[in-house]
Amino acid sequence: MDLTKKDKRHVIHPWSDLGSDAEPMVIESGKGVHVFDSDGNRYLDSISGMWCVNLGYGNEEMAKAISDQCVQLAYYTPFGAMASPPSIQLAHELSQLTPGDLNFFQFTNSGSTAVESAIRFVHYYFNCLGQPEKKHIIYRENAYHGSTYLTASLNGKKCDRSYFNYITDIVHSTSDPNPYKKPEGMSIEDFCDLRVRELKDKILEIGPDKVACFIAEPVMGSGGVIVPPPGYHKKTLDVCREYDVLYISDEVVTAFGRLGHYFASEDVFGIVPDIITVAKGITSGYQPLGAAIISDKLVNRISGESASENSYYTNGFTYSGHPVTCAAALKYLEIMKREKINDHVLEVGSHFMKRLKTLKEFPIVGDVRGVCLMACVECVVSDNEEENIAVAQRVDEHCQAKGLIVRPYENLCILSPPLIIDKAGADQIVDILRDSIISTMNEMG
Amino acid sequence: MDLTKKDKRHVIHPWSDLGSDAEPMVIESGKGVHVFDSDGNRYLDSISGMWCVNLGYGNEEMAKAISDQCVQLAYYTPFGAMASPPSIQLAHELSQLTPGDLNFFQFTNSGSTAVESAIRFVHYYFNCLGQPEKKHIIYRENAYHGSTYLTASLNGKKCDRSYFNYITDIVHSTSDPNPYKKPEGMSIEDFCDLRVRELKDKILEIGPDKVACFIAEPVMGSGGVIVPPPGYHKKTLDVCREYDVLYISDEVVTAFGRLGHYFASEDVFGIVPDIITVAKGITSGYQPLGAAIISDKLVNRISGESASENSYYTNGFTYSGHPVTCAAALKYLEIMKREKINDHVLEVGSHFMKRLKTLKEFPIVGDVRGVCLMACVECVVSDNEEENIAVAQRVDEHCQAKGLIVRPYENLCILSPPLIIDKAGADQIVDILRDSIISTMNEMG
Repeated sequence: MDLTKKDKRHVIHPWSDLGSDAEPMVIESGKGVHVFDSDGNRYLDSISGMWCVNLGYGNEEMAKAISDQCVQLAYYTPFGAMASPPSIQLAHELSQLTPGDLNFFQFTNSGSTAVESAIRFVHYYFNCLGQPEKKHIIYRENAYHGSTYLTASLNGKKCDRSYFNYITDIVHSTSDPNPYKKPEGMSIEDFCDLRVRELKDKILEIGPDKVACFIAEPVMGSGGVIVPPPGYHKKTLDVCREYDVLYISDEVVTAFGRLGHYFASEDVFGIVPDIITVAKGITSGYQPLGAAIISDKLVNRISGESASENSYYTNGFTYSGHPVTCAAALKYLEIMKREKINDHVLEVGSHFMKRLKTLKEFPIVGDVRGVCLMACVECVVSDNEEENIAVAQRVDEHCQAKGLIVRPYENLCILSPPLIIDKAGADQIVDILRDSIISTMNEMG
Repeated sequence: MDLTKKDKRHVIHPWSDLGSDAEPMVIESGKGVHVFDSDGNRYLDSISGMWCVNLGYGNEEMAKAISDQCVQLAYYTPFGAMASPPSIQLAHELSQLTPGDLNFFQFTNSGSTAVESAIRFVHYYFNCLGQPEKKHIIYRENAYHGSTYLTASLNGKKCDRSYFNYITDIVHSTSDPNPYKKPEGMSIEDFCDLRVRELKDKILEIGPDKVACFIAEPVMGSGGVIVPPPGYHKKTLDVCREYDVLYISDEVVTAFGRLGHYFASEDVFGIVPDIITVAKGITSGYQPLGAAIISDKLVNRISGESASENSYYTNGFTYSGHPVTCAAALKYLEIMKREKINDHVLEVGSHFMKRLKTLKEFPIVGDVRGVCLMACVECVVSDNEEENIAVAQRVDEHCQAKGLIVRPYENLCILSPPLIIDKAGADQIVDILRDSIISTMNEMG
């Protein structure tokens, strides 16, 4: 049985169509910014695997660091008062890069469990402080925060929900701050204030004594690379502060170089949240690692002499701080610093966004948006969502035939190339997209 | 700042006491069945890291397989119709080892997310079949199933719950089948039937049209290595079948050799469940990997021509089937077969249990139980739980001072050595335990 048949027979893929008999595309290997499928075709991978392979493929330095840690100590329990060096060293080094006083780390193995851990910490926190009613969570339409029972209930995109069950009792949504969807004639400033007021109204509607936290991606990722209006981050944080609502910044996509900084919350958007969640890029995708990064202020109020009675923190995973995953993250940080990856991203990213925006000239392109190497082309030909999706799919197919993988998601072509891409590579992405848009338009007549 | 101080400053450990200022023990390296702390002390590791480092430490063959895959293809997205070879090959090979028709795999990166995925599948399944009311879950007292909002709500041990929030609307517990706790004078057969009847009563109390699944570890792990009475597994499965309640066998600890078989459900306890969840041992702990393994019967009812409209399976993780983690599992399976690990475990495990049971002669030992290399010594000196815990802690401390790490958990010393341990190593564990029990008794006078 060949690989594609074995896959259909045995593997349930995330976001796959259970009613389809299409066979999968099998990616077998990669080198630099390119991947190769099982037929030997080469593609420029403009999605970094899925927002994560920041250093590109086949990095032997990463492989060696991972292998060395496997030989040194592949695993030891992190439970109770046991520890192993890589997670300690990683927490120490990251604490020098995080904004404000975000110096405590709960390690996990995915973004979903990072968000789980963040929210469970918030619940623990308010329960310790004698405010058990404060357990409600506000998320935003079009958000993506994970794939557990709790975190999937914080996903705001209709197409991310299907026949699963979702929590309804403690989760609430507010509108997303997509400037492209702002009411006609409204200024961007007024649109920003509208969205901020909606958050405030939502807190007041639920009751400030009941709202525990607000969770937001600095730039919404799979929701469509939505960059909020200037000032939105600061103003929403101010609203949260006013009502003692904790602010969780979900940086699973935006941290570790994608926007040209280690973290986007402060360096790009000027805010210091209470908790930051990370995953994906933290190891350049080479290992499954995530973390909830929590402020000293919060941890200090419930630990040490301020700890409650029976203060065991009964949360965490067997593989929290897995030595091999943390060794991978340490090596990635070392390479980021040595190779000045952030500076490179700022330079190439600025060039990329400028060139990408030229695609706005085409009538089937509704919007082009993004920051640095996190971008999106939105196809719009009518008010009919399905027609728009069909157009984006054709653009994607043309790209693939021309040797470029983009991430199709509804009517969006999402782009997040490896951070090591150079200007020529960025140009190639735009050129192939341009050709694919023209081919699609020609077919449409 | 040294490692222990950095750890206290930055890392929030699972199940740590936030009120304690104790510094952690740092494990720095390992070789075979031994680990070494940061002061260079050597310990026989009788807990396999935490039920998982089955091949022992420093295995260079594992390190090479992991490194090779990092170079070949460290990651690619498993979303939609995309795939990479290691997860396909792993699913294919595992399907030849799983009981019955359990041939479909949802890969994750931990036991918690394996259980999440199993339960979310069950919800999806009954919703597709038009039975949305069938969403309630029955678990057992003293069970352990994970550390997410949903799975932590299925943990039945009081000490695993603290200031966190838990789901209450769709989870229900029934009693655990610990023969050591059976009412005095009751036969083991009657005790078994009592527990089975309690499950049946619980289903009838909730309503069979509302109960989606029953989840059970074949041998309860951190709940205290509880081996149910003979026939319990089969009889509980029969009750579930009677009421169309799906049976999830949580084999995160018991699979991949710990009980001398690839899976314990059928080979040890004679049942074919609907879903098996795995993690830990699947990679010998070298990589974070988990899976929900689902029967053809279930998947076929909701896929292909039987799929519902809009049948996107909107569940799964960025790192589902991560190539490097799956390559590690493939290598572990290869080594298990080549080295006949299961046969070895059956032989050494039988010797180990026989020797361990001799410790029952001591008055502070209440019970010794287990199967193969999954065992537990329960310290009991009175009806006072805290006194019993204090005694077990002293035994643990003596063991550690004598170069043996056991897992302290309430009044239990939990033992799960690497599967490669030989009879001499097993003897050494029992000898040090015996000496430590005697030392503790001497101190107690």
